[in-house]
Amino acid sequence: FASKLPHVGTNIFSVMSQMAQQHGAINLSQGFPDFPVSTELIDRIHHYMKAGFNQYAPMPGVPALREALAAKMNRQYGTALQADAHITITAGATEAIFSTITTLVNRGDEVIIIEPSYDCYAPAIALCGAKSVHIPLQFPELSVDWQKVEAAITERTKLIIVNSPHNPTGAIISAEDMQVLSDLVLRHKLWVLSDEVYEHIIFDGNEHQSVLRYPELAERSVAVYSFGKTFHATGWKVGYTVAPEVLTREIRKVHQFVTFSVNTPLQYALADYLANPKHYEALPSFYQAKRDRFLELVAPSRFKALPSSGTYFQLLSFEAISQEPDTEMAIRLTKEFGIASIPVSVFYHHPTDHHVLRFCFAKSEETLQKAAEVLCKI
Amino acid sequence: FASKLPHVGTNIFSVMSQMAQQHGAINLSQGFPDFPVSTELIDRIHHYMKAGFNQYAPMPGVPALREALAAKMNRQYGTALQADAHITITAGATEAIFSTITTLVNRGDEVIIIEPSYDCYAPAIALCGAKSVHIPLQFPELSVDWQKVEAAITERTKLIIVNSPHNPTGAIISAEDMQVLSDLVLRHKLWVLSDEVYEHIIFDGNEHQSVLRYPELAERSVAVYSFGKTFHATGWKVGYTVAPEVLTREIRKVHQFVTFSVNTPLQYALADYLANPKHYEALPSFYQAKRDRFLELVAPSRFKALPSSGTYFQLLSFEAISQEPDTEMAIRLTKEFGIASIPVSVFYHHPTDHHVLRFCFAKSEETLQKAAEVLCKI
Ligand SMILES: CSCCC(=O)C(=O)O
Ligand SMILES: CSCCC(=O)C(=O)O
Repeated sequence: FASKLPHVGTNIFSVMSQMAQQHGAINLSQGFPDFPVSTELIDRIHHYMKAGFNQYAPMPGVPALREALAAKMNRQYGTALQADAHITITAGATEAIFSTITTLVNRGDEVIIIEPSYDCYAPAIALCGAKSVHIPLQFPELSVDWQKVEAAITERTKLIIVNSPHNPTGAIISAEDMQVLSDLVLRHKLWVLSDEVYEHIIFDGNEHQSVLRYPELAERSVAVYSFGKTFHATGWKVGYTVAPEVLTREIRKVHQFVTFSVNTPLQYALADYLANPKHYEALPSFYQAKRDRFLELVAPSRFKALPSSGTYFQLLSFEAISQEPDTEMAIRLTKEFGIASIPVSVFYHHPTDHHVLRFCFAKSEETLQKAAEVLCKI
Repeated sequence: FASKLPHVGTNIFSVMSQMAQQHGAINLSQGFPDFPVSTELIDRIHHYMKAGFNQYAPMPGVPALREALAAKMNRQYGTALQADAHITITAGATEAIFSTITTLVNRGDEVIIIEPSYDCYAPAIALCGAKSVHIPLQFPELSVDWQKVEAAITERTKLIIVNSPHNPTGAIISAEDMQVLSDLVLRHKLWVLSDEVYEHIIFDGNEHQSVLRYPELAERSVAVYSFGKTFHATGWKVGYTVAPEVLTREIRKVHQFVTFSVNTPLQYALADYLANPKHYEALPSFYQAKRDRFLELVAPSRFKALPSSGTYFQLLSFEAISQEPDTEMAIRLTKEFGIASIPVSVFYHHPTDHHVLRFCFAKSEETLQKAAEVLCKI
């Protein structure tokens, strides 16, 4: 047999996390928080497991969870979403993204991705026999050049993938961006996959620009979310898609054969926990304080911070320190200095190296202090 | 967009489970046990969640779990499996099957399936742009006609899917079958996907004929397993693949973009729990007693039992009662008599109706008694 993904090597998150472990480095590479998960939520899971909620969930997800999500999003985004028509629970946002791409993309299609981009879009597109077309985010403004996007649209363009708040840059899409996107999508009859897993991690009073806020755009969009990001539990693997009814029907057909259903007791516990908005409303200020603290701590260093408006990632430029490739700098920083980060060049299809590294600041005060202390010495 | 799975309707398990609920019927349709999950295992999960094991597991699975599995299988099947080279943890057996098919099958390939078959193979093959070739199990012997299988092999045949113990029939593959399969596979250079999720649910002193027992065959095979079946927790969604190293590498590339990783605390808890063979060794006798009891209870009825050598399913023929299509009989049985089952015709690609229904006997004594009482009145 021939490899269907010949260019995929060990993923950067595994590489850097392993390197961090081997060298006893502080791991600010792979994005995961070191904060505890709510004991209340953990105890709810235990409760449902002991109460016998351990058999197959319904294929689209536990109704109570989908209803809690519909209520939450309808408050948050002014939508009129319905649990049955629009929401499907998936094995994390990764499965949500995979199943959406698999549903929409055919052999020979083209899909527009803004780069740098998270690493799971392009391989899912390749597995459908389709082509990824990568449009660079403007640097250092970190904004989308919509004229470039429009120029890349052909008859074969089926889907455009957007991601705000954006991993790895921390950039966010504005209301004006959304108008342009909406116009493009409607004129060219495209579909949108909107990766919104950091919807609650957005700073400086900015409102998250969900595709769901724009009714016409929402009719052509699949929005993807993740409980792992919102509840500090990236290892639980529960996410969901929100899509128009016709599309939800097809996404579920794929989901049914990709994983069938998602962990039952976790879904029941999440439904209970979601009922209290206090459980996620404080997230923006919590993470904004983390970002601000990290920026304050590294301010005296020779690293230069790029603006971060969301996600738990901060880009730091090392141009004032060295001109070496960012991958080499990331390796050296891990092995010699004990701080693991992610070189941003790995998120590009077209070889691009702006000499920036991505640092995850979803970490305790102590960890941030230790890391910054080292960064200030370089 | 055009549907990629135009022929997929609501799946039979959802249809029958919902019908059972609506009519207050005893649900012997969808295969899941009504026995409690071990409290020890549940408490281990709670322990790991509280201890902070809530972030991403390594992409191929938690090492402790893969090592526990290697040790278990090496004892059980006389193999020399290694955690890193051969074992990948997946979001249930469904993801294991999906990722394996996606790894191996290309556009234009053909895949041989023995029918009746579980419903997730053919759609995964269709999504790869390949063709399923369905070879019927001999009826009522429930044995594979290997000459028919060989006659169906063409230049395009890439993979053959086998499943023992077999869902829906409860048939098992014999050592002689394995020799023929092995010979076929080696001569024609095929790959094998061996769905062995019921490996521990096998009766009458039969040994499970894993592909892993046959070294040459194992070199061309992916075996798929499920913790849900073995630990009475079908809703937890943890499974795994066992494959040669070259193939494991490629399966992981697909798995990485399908779900990335599997629930972390569950993996740690399962690793601990697996260490004690008592936790699964009693399963054959436990389920054999269930099967025998169910057969005893329905013996006075007009339903006629087909031999069941494994799985927690029992086929009953209703030929002595009615000549109606099995789907109609299944609906009538649910609505009028309050017993939900699965009509076996839905597991066939070529329209085939032997007037048999599948009943899940993974149920309490009380439930089996109540169900049998009704069946004896029909
Ligand atoms: C799935 S591991 C990667 C986690 C993550 O979202 C990131 O670090 O960008
Ligand atoms: C995934 S729902 C189907 C469960 C099952 O294995 C069966 O009933 O055959």
